[in-house]
Amino acid sequence: MRDVFHDQLDSLFDDLATMAGLARVSVAEATKALLTGDVAVAEQVISDDATLDRLREGIEEQAFSLLSLQAPVAGDLRIVVAALRMVAELERMGDLSVHVAKIARLRVPDLAVPGPVRPLLERMAKVAETMTAQVQRIIAERDVSSAADLALIDDEMDQLRRATFSAMLNDDWPHGVEAAVDLALLGRYYERIADHAVSVANRVVFVVTGEHPVAVPR
Amino acid sequence: MRDVFHDQLDSLFDDLATMAGLARVSVAEATKALLTGDVAVAEQVISDDATLDRLREGIEEQAFSLLSLQAPVAGDLRIVVAALRMVAELERMGDLSVHVAKIARLRVPDLAVPGPVRPLLERMAKVAETMTAQVQRIIAERDVSSAADLALIDDEMDQLRRATFSAMLNDDWPHGVEAAVDLALLGRYYERIADHAVSVANRVVFVVTGEHPVAVPR
Repeated sequence: MRDVFHDQLDSLFDDLATMAGLARVSVAEATKALLTGDVAVAEQVISDDATLDRLREGIEEQAFSLLSLQAPVAGDLRIVVAALRMVAELERMGDLSVHVAKIARLRVPDLAVPGPVRPLLERMAKVAETMTAQVQRIIAERDVSSAADLALIDDEMDQLRRATFSAMLNDDWPHGVEAAVDLALLGRYYERIADHAVSVANRVVFVVTGEHPVAVPR
Repeated sequence: MRDVFHDQLDSLFDDLATMAGLARVSVAEATKALLTGDVAVAEQVISDDATLDRLREGIEEQAFSLLSLQAPVAGDLRIVVAALRMVAELERMGDLSVHVAKIARLRVPDLAVPGPVRPLLERMAKVAETMTAQVQRIIAERDVSSAADLALIDDEMDQLRRATFSAMLNDDWPHGVEAAVDLALLGRYYERIADHAVSVANRVVFVVTGEHPVAVPR
């Protein structure tokens, strides 16, 4: 029979998986707003972020209650502290999606991303969304084996970001300073979403195996 | 007589103040590298970041030991969890300084920041450094009254960031795309350093008063 502590821990991880699911929707919808210039979608991403914030508060309260009432030690304590870190990173992924949505909203009725770099941005957004979806599954199923894949996908994100810089800093970039500044910041936001995804996945590995897999990206 | 828990907590906060001091040096030196194009200074900021990382590990171990051995509840528990969050944010301030230093290094022997926007960037960097110095003092002295000032200084940071966008997106920006992209990212890094400074200060207010002062910036 499971003890109360581990039942509560399972419930905590279920809520973390739910939060990752909402973060994934946020990334996907922010990207949609960006690529279509649909201001209603952008507004929705921005207002829906409050749901992620409320979920974070609930998870933090659960974690506090676990620490207070169960006073876990050693490995169990580290798991609860890891959950507190994961919740902060998942919330941050939502915040970064909001930043993407705000750039989309700022450029309406135009599109922030010029046609020629659109495939690059689409791929970057797809990688970020895929990584967030994987994080949801890794948390829900404690799937440690997939966590290593995430680091590989993250390498593609780094390559894509370098490709955006090459495009912008090419002498014949014809889209002006505004589009370049938007693209630099969008690249930064998607890259950070990916960093947090890898970091959350690594924390799940730690929770399951008791060992840190690789250095957490910055 | 103080109890063991509160003695250990004092020691934890002393180390957090030390970490804030190192973050301040990191911000100041990264800015120096940026404004002078001195590659040796940039390299130093990048390699010194390992010290902040080690300090973080030490503080986290202290916090774990406090949680394990003292099993604090209620307010005391929340203080230790707040300390764990502060340590993550202080480390992040160091990481962001490293990003500034890397832009400086990338442009050597040139300077990343064009002459006309240099005063804007200098002021932004000064605000970030001042905020980090204040955070060090706020942690060391549990000086709750100064924490509110930090939110005011942060307003100046937001204004400065808007001013950099106005300068870049002006039709007669003569410095090209590369300088604009650098400035957009530098502005983002300094703004995030300031956000973390406000957030850490707010956590000290919470630790001392038991109440959250204002919404934590994103």
